[in-house]
Amino acid sequence: MLRYLTAGESHGLCLTAIVEGMPAGLTINQAAIDLELKRRQLGYGRGARMTSIETDKVNFLSGVRAGKTMGSPLTLQVLNKDTSIDKLPKVTRPRPGHADLSGVLKYDLDDVRTILERASARETAARVAVGALMKLFLKEFGIEVFSHVTKMGDGVAKTDTLSFDQIRKKAEVSPLRCADMKAEAKMIRFIDKAKKAGDTVGGSIEIVALNVPVGLGSHVQFDRKLDAKLAMQLMSIQAIKAVEIGAGTKVAELLGSQLHDQIFYSKQKGFFRKTHRAGGIEGGMSVGGPVVVRIHMKPLSTLRRPMMSVDIKNKQSFKATVERSDVSAVPAAGIVGESVMAFVLADALIEKFGGDSVAEIKRNYQGYLRQVAQF
Amino acid sequence: MLRYLTAGESHGLCLTAIVEGMPAGLTINQAAIDLELKRRQLGYGRGARMTSIETDKVNFLSGVRAGKTMGSPLTLQVLNKDTSIDKLPKVTRPRPGHADLSGVLKYDLDDVRTILERASARETAARVAVGALMKLFLKEFGIEVFSHVTKMGDGVAKTDTLSFDQIRKKAEVSPLRCADMKAEAKMIRFIDKAKKAGDTVGGSIEIVALNVPVGLGSHVQFDRKLDAKLAMQLMSIQAIKAVEIGAGTKVAELLGSQLHDQIFYSKQKGFFRKTHRAGGIEGGMSVGGPVVVRIHMKPLSTLRRPMMSVDIKNKQSFKATVERSDVSAVPAAGIVGESVMAFVLADALIEKFGGDSVAEIKRNYQGYLRQVAQF
Amino acid sequence: MLRYLTAGESHGLCLTAIVEGMPAGLTINQAAIDLELKRRQLGYGRGARMTSIETDKVNFLSGVRAGKTMGSPLTLQVLNKDTSIDKLPKVTRPRPGHADLSGVLKYDLDDVRTILERASARETAARVAVGALMKLFLKEFGIEVFSHVTKMGDGVAKTDTLSFDQIRKKAEVSPLRCADMKAEAKMIRFIDKAKKAGDTVGGSIEIVALNVPVGLGSHVQFDRKLDAKLAMQLMSIQAIKAVEIGAGTKVAELLGSQLHDQIFYSKQKGFFRKTHRAGGIEGGMSVGGPVVVRIHMKPLSTLRRPMMSVDIKNKQSFKATVERSDVSAVPAAGIVGESVMAFVLADALIEKFGGDSVAEIKRNYQGYLRQVAQF
Amino acid sequence: MLRYLTAGESHGLCLTAIVEGMPAGLTINQAAIDLELKRRQLGYGRGARMTSIETDKVNFLSGVRAGKTMGSPLTLQVLNKDTSIDKLPKVTRPRPGHADLSGVLKYDLDDVRTILERASARETAARVAVGALMKLFLKEFGIEVFSHVTKMGDGVAKTDTLSFDQIRKKAEVSPLRCADMKAEAKMIRFIDKAKKAGDTVGGSIEIVALNVPVGLGSHVQFDRKLDAKLAMQLMSIQAIKAVEIGAGTKVAELLGSQLHDQIFYSKQKGFFRKTHRAGGIEGGMSVGGPVVVRIHMKPLSTLRRPMMSVDIKNKQSFKATVERSDVSAVPAAGIVGESVMAFVLADALIEKFGGDSVAEIKRNYQGYLRQVAQF
Repeated sequence: MLRYLTAGESHGLCLTAIVEGMPAGLTINQAAIDLELKRRQLGYGRGARMTSIETDKVNFLSGVRAGKTMGSPLTLQVLNKDTSIDKLPKVTRPRPGHADLSGVLKYDLDDVRTILERASARETAARVAVGALMKLFLKEFGIEVFSHVTKMGDGVAKTDTLSFDQIRKKAEVSPLRCADMKAEAKMIRFIDKAKKAGDTVGGSIEIVALNVPVGLGSHVQFDRKLDAKLAMQLMSIQAIKAVEIGAGTKVAELLGSQLHDQIFYSKQKGFFRKTHRAGGIEGGMSVGGPVVVRIHMKPLSTLRRPMMSVDIKNKQSFKATVERSDVSAVPAAGIVGESVMAFVLADALIEKFGGDSVAEIKRNYQGYLRQVAQF
Repeated sequence: MLRYLTAGESHGLCLTAIVEGMPAGLTINQAAIDLELKRRQLGYGRGARMTSIETDKVNFLSGVRAGKTMGSPLTLQVLNKDTSIDKLPKVTRPRPGHADLSGVLKYDLDDVRTILERASARETAARVAVGALMKLFLKEFGIEVFSHVTKMGDGVAKTDTLSFDQIRKKAEVSPLRCADMKAEAKMIRFIDKAKKAGDTVGGSIEIVALNVPVGLGSHVQFDRKLDAKLAMQLMSIQAIKAVEIGAGTKVAELLGSQLHDQIFYSKQKGFFRKTHRAGGIEGGMSVGGPVVVRIHMKPLSTLRRPMMSVDIKNKQSFKATVERSDVSAVPAAGIVGESVMAFVLADALIEKFGGDSVAEIKRNYQGYLRQVAQF
Repeated sequence: MLRYLTAGESHGLCLTAIVEGMPAGLTINQAAIDLELKRRQLGYGRGARMTSIETDKVNFLSGVRAGKTMGSPLTLQVLNKDTSIDKLPKVTRPRPGHADLSGVLKYDLDDVRTILERASARETAARVAVGALMKLFLKEFGIEVFSHVTKMGDGVAKTDTLSFDQIRKKAEVSPLRCADMKAEAKMIRFIDKAKKAGDTVGGSIEIVALNVPVGLGSHVQFDRKLDAKLAMQLMSIQAIKAVEIGAGTKVAELLGSQLHDQIFYSKQKGFFRKTHRAGGIEGGMSVGGPVVVRIHMKPLSTLRRPMMSVDIKNKQSFKATVERSDVSAVPAAGIVGESVMAFVLADALIEKFGGDSVAEIKRNYQGYLRQVAQF
Repeated sequence: MLRYLTAGESHGLCLTAIVEGMPAGLTINQAAIDLELKRRQLGYGRGARMTSIETDKVNFLSGVRAGKTMGSPLTLQVLNKDTSIDKLPKVTRPRPGHADLSGVLKYDLDDVRTILERASARETAARVAVGALMKLFLKEFGIEVFSHVTKMGDGVAKTDTLSFDQIRKKAEVSPLRCADMKAEAKMIRFIDKAKKAGDTVGGSIEIVALNVPVGLGSHVQFDRKLDAKLAMQLMSIQAIKAVEIGAGTKVAELLGSQLHDQIFYSKQKGFFRKTHRAGGIEGGMSVGGPVVVRIHMKPLSTLRRPMMSVDIKNKQSFKATVERSDVSAVPAAGIVGESVMAFVLADALIEKFGGDSVAEIKRNYQGYLRQVAQF
């Protein structure tokens, strides 16, 4: 069992995650983790504030000795630059689209700040740190996770003719993490137009895990299904309003014969598919190969253009507005998506293969791969 | 904490669910529960087999005395008509789109039947029984859940001008659970055409919960978010490939100012919204009022039209086909969707309001409603 | 992850357990399971009622095909002989020592029966069925669990000079499951005297698991410790008021040098101990070899000799008494103890070795044993 | 749901706990929490090292704003004085009684330090910090938890004639947290003698919670029982080998009529007991009033007097010994016991009464107390 909890507010001292259940003997590549935190901070559409501030770094406060995991819980800390939470003024004006109003009603508070400090997407820095750790672990098994932006406004990426490797490389050097330059140009125009209008935009992101073995997750109980676990983690990301596996919403238009991935076999490859419309998951289990999901992020809820709201103190209507704001954080949401997907896969791997050290898990994993090959 | 496990195979003796954490004092309306089981069995597109067989009924084997819940775990049993699991022949031919192949590789089996018996959608009968129980509980708090089919092929329901009440009523009398007769006609043509071709179809379903109080779920941790919990349960339904909350995938096209639901206030209603594009959830919490989700079901994986597969015993390719098959089970999936949504809401209600008897939970609930009203 | 839920009342239709997470390919020995249910019904001190009735049997309603586990959840059902729950009269007189009074206050009930039906030790039949299944699984790894009664009144068993094997054999043929005949004679006198006086007695039981591998459980988090998990399951058995690991309460009298088990090594055995005062668990992990715990059962709470109580309806004092009653169920509690211990070990085994089939778990297990041997 | 995870090594930077599920609006009394940390560091029998070092203090890194809980997860940090984990030499000599040997075998390590750093009782500082927070919360409901040492060697405290209040006061000013001065003198002699011999000692501790309402925990499922939850948490404390509830192991000697607490009623008090031999728990539920448990701590495993062990590198036997060591940490274990008991009760309270703010939980709690009073 692998588990984690995050804690921390956006203007508190730090974000903290405790990760529990990691095997011993994993080499910690600090630079690789910090790079993930940096990737989360990039992307066209962020305000000047975001891109100019110092990049996040992770501190390991426990669980690591001499550069390796100890088997004991890891404490990951990401310090905040602005730690003024106790000095910041009370907020009585909830913003549409945020946790603000529901939060103060639920927790019986007279200050919206107590809610927004935790509901903020700043929390995802902790999740990216956790996910970066999971990526290091998955890499030991050849599993890799990446994301690319597929849609913003009228910019819709066409990537059908590209290999996953090509998509990955193109996305990694694109300011919007988009593998289709033409679509990206449209996306940028969409962002710029929104910016001028004081508005915000969202977008769609595809997240892909490569080299996933067959048989992660299970069909036997609702909460063991790999797609269900992915859906939970992905939908829990701030601002995500939809999760698709493989063909996703398109399944409502296709015929069965157009959708289902036929099964083939060769001595070398064993069983394989030529298509991947199921997104690599059938019956709650990975089929082996790539797992493909898509998430859809709503426009940021903090915008310069005014929206109607009500002051919680005096119950007067007002026009909610901010001085400045990011226009979009879609590429960043992709990094968060990669991170939680990495967690789900690492958890499923540890559930299936057991083990307390990386070496033991690898041994069990190799035994299973032989079993499948000799099936 | 409310929890449940289901068990049972499609040709075993029965399906069983144990439901744990239900308060004492809930009146069991057996007819209401059996009605839900019946609703799950209906719908245009099922084969003759499905519609002709006797309807399912639930037996309470524990947890109920004199028609009321006892606080102890409930055992819900739905008997199978065909219980020949031990006599049915071995299956060595996995079907594309099913758990079949991944299952035998993962569990190291030489018989696909061992997998398909459990992976089958028959399991959802147990979940509908559980959900029906949850609906009885939610009704004590005025919360109701319904579903309607919104898309199949080129049939796309237009329901913007209808109230939820109108949609509900129309859907309940429609053979496809569709509230738009014109769209339904197209859907039926889509089904009929597929049937003639030996093919299958999927579709999209909207599920709505009415009168949900503000503040179910929480923003404080990823696994406490109401949308994340809904996504997990909904994606765990057999054949579901996408889950949307509110505007869902549309958020990638809209501007922030077009999407976010502005906040209003009146003495009578307290805080309220005029739009519900967030689907009734912001920051992982219910905002109060309707909660709206959509799920997308893939075409059934068992079709008459042949698809390529490989025999697991001799590794020879073959054309997978069946004698007869349902063409669609989309309306039924809607009932399953209602059921798991009812569970998530009942669980969230019990988490927020505690209590061991219906009377106690109601007392706590009323206290909270007064708190919110006087905020 | 292995998990189970039990359901059922003592005069309801049946007891049910759903067991989830069992690997595929385990051969179900029905006779062995029924034998465990029978062992639970035996023991000197039971009333005529208990020993005369037909013995319990388990029905597998799911999860088994052709005599083997399928990987899917198992439904274990034990039918009740007396199923009159709905006809039995209301009870308004709570018995001291039972869940009766706290139960009606907590669940806001006017009928004690609603509580006692579930709180009754009848529930342990379900847990013994589950445990019997776990024993079958553990046997695949050479692990066996047994119990013997060590104390009742002034009867205190001396077993220091006996091997575990000898203790086990003697206990299995003793009417009190006691390996020391002299002590047993005293226990029987203690029971007989209590019986004459209309009173009841409890006792102490030792439970031993043999051939447990090193490294089950973990020191890294409070809820991963093997002793903590054992304590939870053992204390949850009806009427158990104390749990000891190894030397148990004696540790308050001993010096460190008298208690701790020194460490030795030989080429053949690897690391080993000559003493087992830690009960086979150090730092929350098994040390390898036997795991030894003791539980202490209070006298039955239903006695002929009157005790003062208060009618919940009219608040009048009365003398609680019953016509007839068992005097002791200590040997039976030992079987329940074996059962829950078997569950904890099976769960720990599956957590450490992963795997979805018995063959896969064995392969991983063998790999670990080699690793330890070559350490 | 209330949950926590701890992390941290004894010579790492710090111990960290994330506590999740605390309601909003609890005033944080930092001095009260630091006092608990100090209480854990005291007690006759600690070496000079322990008593001379600076006392622990807790830092709240999240979850608190303006001195009140926010509803969001709390991060509690206790800094270590010695943070040399990366510089400390490799250890190849496992100590009997510790996690050392099982740990290196399980996690496949060549350095015992990687295990002992986490298995050390230093971890309990985090649990005491968490428990101190729980005590603040419980105080809002009038619930208090304290401990006193009842046995060490031949020193056995007699406290039958004292009220809980008297015991508490006497224990709090005693160097051994013992309420019986005569017994304490014997205990001190026991300690001093062991010290001279280079040996270590353990002891027994009683932990009492006052003013617990009726109905925490439940009889309906094994893992909802209050005694089972207490047993888990208490047995998880480093070096604890036995847990008793109420009369505990004595139940094996007593008759039913001598043990069970008879039930009485008066208009003022409602239902009540004159005896508390059940330890305040029947049928897995609190009966209302004090809850009394006892834990038994083994002698410290690090002693000056040599014990046989084996070097894991060269497999040579050696005599395990240390330069200096504490002789006993029994009073400290009592503080840890109080802490985990406070957690279990706080969790049970939140499960029963729900609520997201202290005010809401209190309102629900008051409603329940009225319900019970009017029963």
